Amino acid sequence: MPDIARLQGMARLLRYWILTATTQAGSGHPTSSLSAVELMAGLLWGEKGGRRFFRFDPEERDHPANDRLIFSKGHASPLFYSLWAGAGQVDEDELMTYRHFGSRMEGHPTSSFPFTEAATGSLGQGLAVGLGMALDAKRVDGLPANVFVLLGDSEMAEGSQWEAMQLAAHYGLDNLVGVLDVNRLGQRGETMHGHDLAVYERKVGAFGWEAVVVEDGHDLEQVADAYARALEADRPAMLIARTVKGKGVAEAEDKNGWHGKALDQEACDRAVADLGEVDRDLRLELAPPEYRRPNRRSPGGIEPPEYGMGDKVPTRKAYGNALKRIFPAHPEMVVLDGEVSNSTKAAAFKEAHPERFFEMFIAEQAMAGAALGFAAKGKRPFASTFAAFWSRASDFIRMAQYSEPSMVFCGSHAGVSIGEDGPSQMGLEDMAFFRTLLGSAVLYPSDAMSCERLVEEAAGFEGMAYIRTTRGGTPVIYGPEETFPIGGCKVLRRTAADKAALVAAGVTLHEALDAAAELAEEGISVRVIDLYSVKPVDRDTLLETAGEVGAIITIEDHYAAGGLGEAVLSALAGHPCPVHSLAVTKKARSGPSREQLEHQGLSKDAIIRKVKEVA
Amino acid sequence: MPDIARLQGMARLLRYWILTATTQAGSGHPTSSLSAVELMAGLLWGEKGGRRFFRFDPEERDHPANDRLIFSKGHASPLFYSLWAGAGQVDEDELMTYRHFGSRMEGHPTSSFPFTEAATGSLGQGLAVGLGMALDAKRVDGLPANVFVLLGDSEMAEGSQWEAMQLAAHYGLDNLVGVLDVNRLGQRGETMHGHDLAVYERKVGAFGWEAVVVEDGHDLEQVADAYARALEADRPAMLIARTVKGKGVAEAEDKNGWHGKALDQEACDRAVADLGEVDRDLRLELAPPEYRRPNRRSPGGIEPPEYGMGDKVPTRKAYGNALKRIFPAHPEMVVLDGEVSNSTKAAAFKEAHPERFFEMFIAEQAMAGAALGFAAKGKRPFASTFAAFWSRASDFIRMAQYSEPSMVFCGSHAGVSIGEDGPSQMGLEDMAFFRTLLGSAVLYPSDAMSCERLVEEAAGFEGMAYIRTTRGGTPVIYGPEETFPIGGCKVLRRTAADKAALVAAGVTLHEALDAAAELAEEGISVRVIDLYSVKPVDRDTLLETAGEVGAIITIEDHYAAGGLGEAVLSALAGHPCPVHSLAVTKKARSGPSREQLEHQGLSKDAIIRKVKEVA
Repeated sequence: MPDIARLQGMARLLRYWILTATTQAGSGHPTSSLSAVELMAGLLWGEKGGRRFFRFDPEERDHPANDRLIFSKGHASPLFYSLWAGAGQVDEDELMTYRHFGSRMEGHPTSSFPFTEAATGSLGQGLAVGLGMALDAKRVDGLPANVFVLLGDSEMAEGSQWEAMQLAAHYGLDNLVGVLDVNRLGQRGETMHGHDLAVYERKVGAFGWEAVVVEDGHDLEQVADAYARALEADRPAMLIARTVKGKGVAEAEDKNGWHGKALDQEACDRAVADLGEVDRDLRLELAPPEYRRPNRRSPGGIEPPEYGMGDKVPTRKAYGNALKRIFPAHPEMVVLDGEVSNSTKAAAFKEAHPERFFEMFIAEQAMAGAALGFAAKGKRPFASTFAAFWSRASDFIRMAQYSEPSMVFCGSHAGVSIGEDGPSQMGLEDMAFFRTLLGSAVLYPSDAMSCERLVEEAAGFEGMAYIRTTRGGTPVIYGPEETFPIGGCKVLRRTAADKAALVAAGVTLHEALDAAAELAEEGISVRVIDLYSVKPVDRDTLLETAGEVGAIITIEDHYAAGGLGEAVLSALAGHPCPVHSLAVTKKARSGPSREQLEHQGLSKDAIIRKVKEVA
Repeated sequence: MPDIARLQGMARLLRYWILTATTQAGSGHPTSSLSAVELMAGLLWGEKGGRRFFRFDPEERDHPANDRLIFSKGHASPLFYSLWAGAGQVDEDELMTYRHFGSRMEGHPTSSFPFTEAATGSLGQGLAVGLGMALDAKRVDGLPANVFVLLGDSEMAEGSQWEAMQLAAHYGLDNLVGVLDVNRLGQRGETMHGHDLAVYERKVGAFGWEAVVVEDGHDLEQVADAYARALEADRPAMLIARTVKGKGVAEAEDKNGWHGKALDQEACDRAVADLGEVDRDLRLELAPPEYRRPNRRSPGGIEPPEYGMGDKVPTRKAYGNALKRIFPAHPEMVVLDGEVSNSTKAAAFKEAHPERFFEMFIAEQAMAGAALGFAAKGKRPFASTFAAFWSRASDFIRMAQYSEPSMVFCGSHAGVSIGEDGPSQMGLEDMAFFRTLLGSAVLYPSDAMSCERLVEEAAGFEGMAYIRTTRGGTPVIYGPEETFPIGGCKVLRRTAADKAALVAAGVTLHEALDAAAELAEEGISVRVIDLYSVKPVDRDTLLETAGEVGAIITIEDHYAAGGLGEAVLSALAGHPCPVHSLAVTKKARSGPSREQLEHQGLSKDAIIRKVKEVA
């Protein structure tokens, strides 16, 4: 068990590594790392009354009983990597590849480095991810693992922090500990509250957390006392520690203008000399966790979905039904929703399996972050809100891709067809956003049966999947025998004489089918394709189609930019078959669904007009 | 001056309209409107000691001295429209068009209705918009106008509220008043805190606001006392009022399951009968504002930008220079930044004109909302952060379009070329998002001179403009005589023998120019186009180009979906000239800029290879 002298030795070594790694890289955030050295050394190797605070087995780093450590202030990555070096998990040579192309030691922690719990670097996200991990440990796995999140003071200006805090308090997560490194200085100057610890104490307390003030965050005794108190609290706890930015480097300490700057070699040498004797061979052991088994169920069988052909069923309803139906086969599932489960229909799951449902209230950022926390710990989160409101969490979702999770987002109430509630509630840019994510799947079912099957596909998808559902009922057009592989499509009407192909998904597919039927009566035959997988897109079928028809018309209840139409254009880039896009191009308004589709030129009649114009 | 009895009469009339308008529409949120009737009637027409609270001249609704009223809980729109009917500004017949297609009375308030200060309906946004308006009145116009924001209790779960609150406290905005309608029930059940007013009081107080508890939000005397206290406070104030959802409708009062449901005709008739005698001719006058003139400067002349041809200057630096340079000609400008002004270079403006610069700290949602608040009051906000971090405010920006503002966003540090900081800091999906906005401009300058000119263009653009800037220096390639109209492009190399055209912008334009020069030495001539206006795109020039070359290659430091490549594909949809896209398609990593571009296949060499492959 390390005594204070050994911890101080480790603190010197960490400072040495922070300085030398950033100076060799010529960039990075040494001063933001230096302020948190004692807070982190005191966590990993400190103890009080024989109780170690952080318990982790590096040899079994995926063991669910391990504590988790998240650097929400991801720019303190030099400290993060150095900690794992201090624990003997990274050698010094590799530390010195920091920020080189191809190194696991990236500028901000990513999944390239195996001890990264979640990629960070966009501030204000770690606490939400920690919320998910703390829920997972306490409420799902039933394990005594604690989750520690290192926070910068600047990032407390992000509302997402307070979303996560109130949810953690609501769920009574006594296994979540924030470590707020109040070093007073942000990137371009002083933070809103400077070194006024009392303001943070009031805010943190008001949000239902145990506020543990640490007057000197560089005093290892005070730090140990604080962790002991935080871990004893019966609610989430936050260390609020006064620290000095650049601590240990005389010329940079508590000074503006030093954010995100590496020292030059001379300054680095001076600073290293000032550290005193550094034992570069010092390595300290982490305390092991309590190796308990998590709660686990074995997968069971499930029934196929049942719907009557032609019945009008909203795909959102099928989403909820599917969650409930497939859970036995996917015991790793958890479901989250942002206070709209009666609309997204995730409520069907909640009623059946309340222990695996997590109400996130109207806090989409915290929901996305918590979902990532679950995913990072091996669960399969299905998180839902209105398609429009996922835009609230775009930065969280963008960042999540760098953690390489498998997780599912569902956006309901897609498009103008929702009707009277008007544009604020209409998801019209959701496909554009979810298409940008590397390796993502964008799934847009047109009927209840395909929605059920796509939920199953998503449950097994490696990566981030998005399911777009529709508010109103659409007729069931598929039987239970049909399969819907991600990356496929369905050719629903096809003749050798097809003049054009209508490519659609969701509500507009039914307009396309109606248009095709009416055109057929006039002797004009058109192909109809259900592009339920907007990404990855079935390029082969689209190319084959392009070779057989005179024109392709895409129809989507989504803005023209970045959606289904551009997905088809990209797939057919270079093919001479013209592609025409029907999409939402006018300001949407309140009004009945039918009038919306007419107004935007997405109705059966508009499609017929377009076919006659171009084919 | 109305006495309590007249106010009670108005409350009855408001309830009558809320019920009848939603019942005729067959949808809407009557119960969420009913809870706030007294809070709003008490604001608009209440008084204490002869002092009226809300001062507004409906005949001069754009007068800057007017108070502002924002319904952050936009679903209470039936109450919102009814208030303006009660003030004689809307007649009852029009109220009864609520939610009809084409009506100004949309499901949630939008700019279709002239008294809407900002479109709402995505919860948690009104306070940030109010923050901007309060800053505008107090800090820019120097007027005593107050800003009132009606808030739902559910939406206090959104972190954006707390972002706005801490900034309002930081700026000492004693002219901002929140009105929190604590009706206990959200959409699918009870809120996190139910009717526990004390929790809200603690949180609001901890965030630096005056917390004014109203034990009975239906008691007009208590409401008047609360407004009087709120307006006397020397800091922002929040009424925290216990109310009853569905107040006045016996079968719905304080009951779950009534969110977002209109009463059927029978239930409506019963409820109307229960209201007692309603005087449908009652109209009450609003109190006028103090008609003072706002601080105003006259526009002056400005100098052209100066850069040496070939000098390497980051476009982000030119952005800051331009803000400072053009301010004399654009006295309506305000500049906001999210704690990174030393990186976005907005700091150049801050140093020159600190009174028009607003530090928003790391709170991008509040920044976007505040920028809209300024825009709605006739200012021209330029708001900046890293391109990646605008994704934090996507929902605010999405919603802003429904207020039809003219405003400018700048995203710096675009693309993988930022280098060592790694993917968390790289804007790789920003163009896809900003392209979705109706009528937006997406501008992507390649050198300092064009960036300066595009900032000028953006300052005069009607709509939402986005300027994408680059971290590293790029050579100046344009002289001061060049113009850069939005919707144009620059053909930089052109011969009759061009095999292919390279279409690029930003950092990749320079790779394209270098590639073209090297190819020319080998006798292969290619056209090079600077597509500085990614939206609107210069379709004519692209079509002309497509007719003259064998292939078009787009090159962009952005993900493939929704960016420059798909913008070109959309513009050329149907043209047989093949379009090939070079974009970011692999997971980005930390490392030097040059290696990033090589890794993603966006470098000069990669372009040369592609030309040889396809042309």
